[in-house]
Amino acid sequence: MREALERPGLISLAAGFTDNPSLPVAETRVIIKDLLKGNKGPSRLQYGTTYGDEPLRKLTAQRLDRMDGCPKQAKGYDPDRFLITHGSQQLLYILNEILFDPGDIVLVEDPSYFVYLGIMQSHGVLGKGIRMEPDGLDLLSLETTLETLKKSGELARLKALYLVSYHSNPTGITTCAAKKEAALKILKGYEKSAGHPIYLIEDAAYRELSFSDKDTPSALSSHNASNRVIYTSTYSKPFATGIRVGYGFLPEPLFTTAARVKGNHDFGTANFLQQILSSAVESGSYEEHVQKLRKRYASKARAMTRACKKHFPEKVKWENPEGGLYLWVNLPKKVKTGLRSKLFIEALKQKVLYVPGNLCYCDDATRRKPNHQMRLSFGSASIKHIEEGISRLGRAIKRVM
Amino acid sequence: MREALERPGLISLAAGFTDNPSLPVAETRVIIKDLLKGNKGPSRLQYGTTYGDEPLRKLTAQRLDRMDGCPKQAKGYDPDRFLITHGSQQLLYILNEILFDPGDIVLVEDPSYFVYLGIMQSHGVLGKGIRMEPDGLDLLSLETTLETLKKSGELARLKALYLVSYHSNPTGITTCAAKKEAALKILKGYEKSAGHPIYLIEDAAYRELSFSDKDTPSALSSHNASNRVIYTSTYSKPFATGIRVGYGFLPEPLFTTAARVKGNHDFGTANFLQQILSSAVESGSYEEHVQKLRKRYASKARAMTRACKKHFPEKVKWENPEGGLYLWVNLPKKVKTGLRSKLFIEALKQKVLYVPGNLCYCDDATRRKPNHQMRLSFGSASIKHIEEGISRLGRAIKRVM
Repeated sequence: MREALERPGLISLAAGFTDNPSLPVAETRVIIKDLLKGNKGPSRLQYGTTYGDEPLRKLTAQRLDRMDGCPKQAKGYDPDRFLITHGSQQLLYILNEILFDPGDIVLVEDPSYFVYLGIMQSHGVLGKGIRMEPDGLDLLSLETTLETLKKSGELARLKALYLVSYHSNPTGITTCAAKKEAALKILKGYEKSAGHPIYLIEDAAYRELSFSDKDTPSALSSHNASNRVIYTSTYSKPFATGIRVGYGFLPEPLFTTAARVKGNHDFGTANFLQQILSSAVESGSYEEHVQKLRKRYASKARAMTRACKKHFPEKVKWENPEGGLYLWVNLPKKVKTGLRSKLFIEALKQKVLYVPGNLCYCDDATRRKPNHQMRLSFGSASIKHIEEGISRLGRAIKRVM
Repeated sequence: MREALERPGLISLAAGFTDNPSLPVAETRVIIKDLLKGNKGPSRLQYGTTYGDEPLRKLTAQRLDRMDGCPKQAKGYDPDRFLITHGSQQLLYILNEILFDPGDIVLVEDPSYFVYLGIMQSHGVLGKGIRMEPDGLDLLSLETTLETLKKSGELARLKALYLVSYHSNPTGITTCAAKKEAALKILKGYEKSAGHPIYLIEDAAYRELSFSDKDTPSALSSHNASNRVIYTSTYSKPFATGIRVGYGFLPEPLFTTAARVKGNHDFGTANFLQQILSSAVESGSYEEHVQKLRKRYASKARAMTRACKKHFPEKVKWENPEGGLYLWVNLPKKVKTGLRSKLFIEALKQKVLYVPGNLCYCDDATRRKPNHQMRLSFGSASIKHIEEGISRLGRAIKRVM
């Protein structure tokens, strides 16, 4: 397999990268020229604070106010509760450190973001999968799982629900605001039995990569969010992945604890990167870029689904993505997709790579991991490569079926 | 105290920042202009790998070969064993995660780097202080401590010796190569009783900030290093603190484990920052900058010691630094320097801030923490502020004495 992976000409539809031509080179050049000009230049290259750049935290709060439809006269989100991190990934890691002990339980979408599942596993945290519906989390599945945990006495170990709420990785599903509000209410109802707060970690990494202007308010804006919602997001994917700047909004006392751990990790996010983002957001060049990116990914997603329609057998199913970077593909149940499956090996032979769906399911003994799905990314490959890659994958699927 | 800290006109001799005017603004401008030019531009803004930029790892290995006096025909350090991190701080944190369990013991210089002590504490790791001599670690103190641990049955918990081996934070002491070699031999002698490897973590953060051309080979180059030395260092302090790029050389199996954890933290260090450093090192502009910086800090150190001579009572003692960013000051034992001491409060009244020496000692019940020392930094303050700050501090000391 290693050999196959290094074979020249392999088309990867696996990695969640953004594509090179979309990266804001000219914009970044202009921003940096300006940043390193005049007597403020040196301060851009100096250490920042552990929390993050003040103007960037303020701009981030204002953007979130706007996205969540906060009325102008309202107080809005407090900039002092935003922590800037090296990508939202680092914040997710820190949250794992401060919230969970080995043996604790976290509810996750079934399937969920596999890197997050890896972080959980490395901290000895157990996952319970919550079923998904087209409009998000299956609330009945949530309630049933909570009831089961209550009955088995495991509720004391339940600490959070982790939700990739916008254009989810891997399924592309967005959980609607009403469901987030309902989920919060349901979780709240079990806190007494649990004996501690149960947090909703809302990972909004793909929120800005929506293909239409349709947006959904965050769980933070729920009237019952009441210090139980942790919101994480990123500037990296919508701008430049090589400029790793993520952020989160945390309720107290979590904010203070997370900031202390962040200080231990690295004293704070590289100041120069924050200055670049701060300047991009303030000047509007960030927003402009996001608009371009959304159109770009929308057309790449269309290219991918078009190619799937053309090259995949009829029994292969998917939902057209409305944002994000991924297409979640369902094969007939008998067609296995895992790393050792005939299909995966055949796909490598055809020089195309996908993420096996079973990697996106947490280890939850109460159900079998589905093994007939795949995550395809239209992020990094060019449209030409997407078309060729899907054609190859179609060939592999047909051979195996 | 908070009020005093926010008082305008406070001169901080506490923080280990570098100073603004020394930051390589023009150099960075030239580098970035070049990086974002032409068809390679987009790749600079793309994700990198978890390990770090290949060319930067290679350049780092070559520089270390050169510094350690590796003969040209020799094989030199393997670039594949270098991990690039968001500052060496992040690597120190990851090492704590992968090497130690709560209750484990780490030997540290007495006094040592207080942020590292904080990381240890946050992971429940216990410190044992090893006395220092002008040429570094006191080997007798090392042996005695190891013997004591052996007798008390605690050797099984001893995992490492952490050594800020060049121009140490806070004392400025450099541990000579012979002592590092001897320390490795001594540690090796206790591995059998311990039942596992005992590592030497060599933190070389200040190695390049030497005021003369004198350098000391790293412990890695010891003939008996044999997979027991972890070397950490940084490009941030010698270049730009806002561009957080550190690195480490790790023996297997630690390298693989550390890289996995680094992947969980953040997928890898921000690629754009690595590209800047890689380009700076390759073009020679990094070396040029380091040379300038060394002269600059040497003259700031001289300004500080000159001012101390002028303003401090005779009974106050220090060693002239030969590198790094710090001056370690010994007051008569009866003059306390801690956060609640008369001197600290009086210094704040005089609008000058220092780091109390007792913060730099680990909690080690076998000795009392000295409380009559202070760490002064000549890093961030200007020469004018250094002179004024020391004059204020002298006034405070005289009042209290």
